[in-house]
Amino acid sequence: MTVLPTAGATGAVAWLDALRRRCGSDVHAFVTERVREHFTGHALDTPAPAALAEFVTGGKFLRPMFAYTGWRCGGPESAAALKAAASLELLHCFALAQDDVMDGSARRRGRPSMHVRFARWHEEQGLSGSAARFGESAAVLMGDLFLVWSEQLLSESGLGADALARGRGVYDVLRSELAVGQLGDLVNDARTLPSWAEVLDVIRRKSGNYTVRRPLEFGAALAGCAPDVVTALGAYGGLLGEAFQFRDDLLGVFGDPAVTGKPAGDDLRERKASSVVVLARDLADDHQRAGFAELLAAAEVDDGAVDRWRALITATGARDQLEKFIDDRVRRALEAIDQVSLPRQAASVLTVLANRCTERVR
Amino acid sequence: MTVLPTAGATGAVAWLDALRRRCGSDVHAFVTERVREHFTGHALDTPAPAALAEFVTGGKFLRPMFAYTGWRCGGPESAAALKAAASLELLHCFALAQDDVMDGSARRRGRPSMHVRFARWHEEQGLSGSAARFGESAAVLMGDLFLVWSEQLLSESGLGADALARGRGVYDVLRSELAVGQLGDLVNDARTLPSWAEVLDVIRRKSGNYTVRRPLEFGAALAGCAPDVVTALGAYGGLLGEAFQFRDDLLGVFGDPAVTGKPAGDDLRERKASSVVVLARDLADDHQRAGFAELLAAAEVDDGAVDRWRALITATGARDQLEKFIDDRVRRALEAIDQVSLPRQAASVLTVLANRCTERVR
Repeated sequence: MTVLPTAGATGAVAWLDALRRRCGSDVHAFVTERVREHFTGHALDTPAPAALAEFVTGGKFLRPMFAYTGWRCGGPESAAALKAAASLELLHCFALAQDDVMDGSARRRGRPSMHVRFARWHEEQGLSGSAARFGESAAVLMGDLFLVWSEQLLSESGLGADALARGRGVYDVLRSELAVGQLGDLVNDARTLPSWAEVLDVIRRKSGNYTVRRPLEFGAALAGCAPDVVTALGAYGGLLGEAFQFRDDLLGVFGDPAVTGKPAGDDLRERKASSVVVLARDLADDHQRAGFAELLAAAEVDDGAVDRWRALITATGARDQLEKFIDDRVRRALEAIDQVSLPRQAASVLTVLANRCTERVR
Repeated sequence: MTVLPTAGATGAVAWLDALRRRCGSDVHAFVTERVREHFTGHALDTPAPAALAEFVTGGKFLRPMFAYTGWRCGGPESAAALKAAASLELLHCFALAQDDVMDGSARRRGRPSMHVRFARWHEEQGLSGSAARFGESAAVLMGDLFLVWSEQLLSESGLGADALARGRGVYDVLRSELAVGQLGDLVNDARTLPSWAEVLDVIRRKSGNYTVRRPLEFGAALAGCAPDVVTALGAYGGLLGEAFQFRDDLLGVFGDPAVTGKPAGDDLRERKASSVVVLARDLADDHQRAGFAELLAAAEVDDGAVDRWRALITATGARDQLEKFIDDRVRRALEAIDQVSLPRQAASVLTVLANRCTERVR
């Protein structure tokens, strides 16, 4: 079955672009169908149908890309496997909708976040009670729907019962790790700066595993890849996942709003205990440490404070150090997959993805 | 396989008691195993492990009871089917943990609710930021874990792929309806009293379907029951589900805190647009209507206001009317299952359950 162009003909980048488009249309079609099923003929007129359908568009589809590439390390091109991989995008939508509530993030992908959208509707309708609270509750529920629908898309992907049974273990671990990791994030953010070890622990459990390693392992498990391939993909995924999160954390502090779709210095404004801040604290000299204490004690993080935080972090050397950590992990990730024999297409796609998910502009 | 005592030997009530104990131990064992898997060796020390394990105890296990009884309309006693039925209790835990956040309910089953428990821990640890907000976020995440684990318990129940494939359609509809129904609840609560039709719509979509009809249909689908049996169970479930919710709404206004485990008049304090309040509004005469307007406009619902609300609702005749609605629906539900041939045990259990889930003290 011809599902996507072969990498040999058009290169790994074109293959990934086609993969992303196909995942996007699969996910959008599935959500549209679920919305029709559950919101048609309803006495309630809410923004839910449009909000759900729009929320699944515009993503980078990194997790489906890793999952489908994992599948291609042992399986043929397959429309069913592609749907199973795409199910991870719905899992990601679940995480984004609920994380934005917990973090109080007003924007997502350059648009109002889910809870803000529902809060505005509450205001427009002149409903009683707190609009903010209504928005948050509704966004949690939209997240719940995405979580349910992710698993439903996987089950209905068209993959056989044997393949699904092979993949389910990783899929379930991934889902639980995501929630446990988010709890870790909350606890770290509530501490007056956690240790570097604590930050790394959460990165490994949540972002790293969730974005790269588990999706790859999931796809490889669905395809029934050999144990040595799964091990190599796991090593690649663990290292690259950390690098991905380091980049994400750098963008959260230094990123361009036009590119990230979020306010400048967003992680600082939300007082996230990210790897950038914790590493800077560890590297700071006495003078810089005093500056840290002052910024941490400030009641609010305004534009001026963002600028001072950025200068201070850069001065400690934390920014350069994290760039080195990223380069080092990407290099070792690529070495890990060099240890096993992979289909040529999958190997070149993994190389492209290693760069794509750690590049400075994304 | 002897899983439970037969109804012939010990009666439907003893059978249900044994079923409840067995579901309780299955769910507790499964959650304990998941907690060990995901929280052992963690850098984080949070109340999550104990909170998760305790939250699944003390429930009535109504939904697993209906599901397993649905199974017994076409299948033999089966430890695997019992685990599949028990998975609905974890789905219920998901709903309770998150609903309590959205409703601001401080207590659940006579204990502090999930978000209150985490908020207290945040305070005890002297963490930074809002303890209430931390508690709410953590409770949403614990709910997410229950949602994931429900589906995992179903998948790992030991039922064959064919049975699971038959049950999955209803299971997925049930999960989505639950979230969509909760959104409907939120919208209705935010309106200055919705119409009776809007209240019934939400009751049918959420509580009624979710508690009785879908669990029964789910069990029957897993067992591969004949279409006429599924239809009769659906009719019974739809009617009984409404009756169940009417009883729940009456208890939310008139219930004894010692029995409900919640404060007296809890639904009034939370300004829930429940069937009791909306029916009373519809039945009220001009004088009573003025009293309604006054109570609705009050900033806070204190003990005195609860007493006045109760007297007003009783005076409109809404309480008696709902009792009649309940009796009527229970009678018609039992007539519906009389139309088909069911195993004797299943039929007597359905009769007991019809009374149990609508009785005045529960």
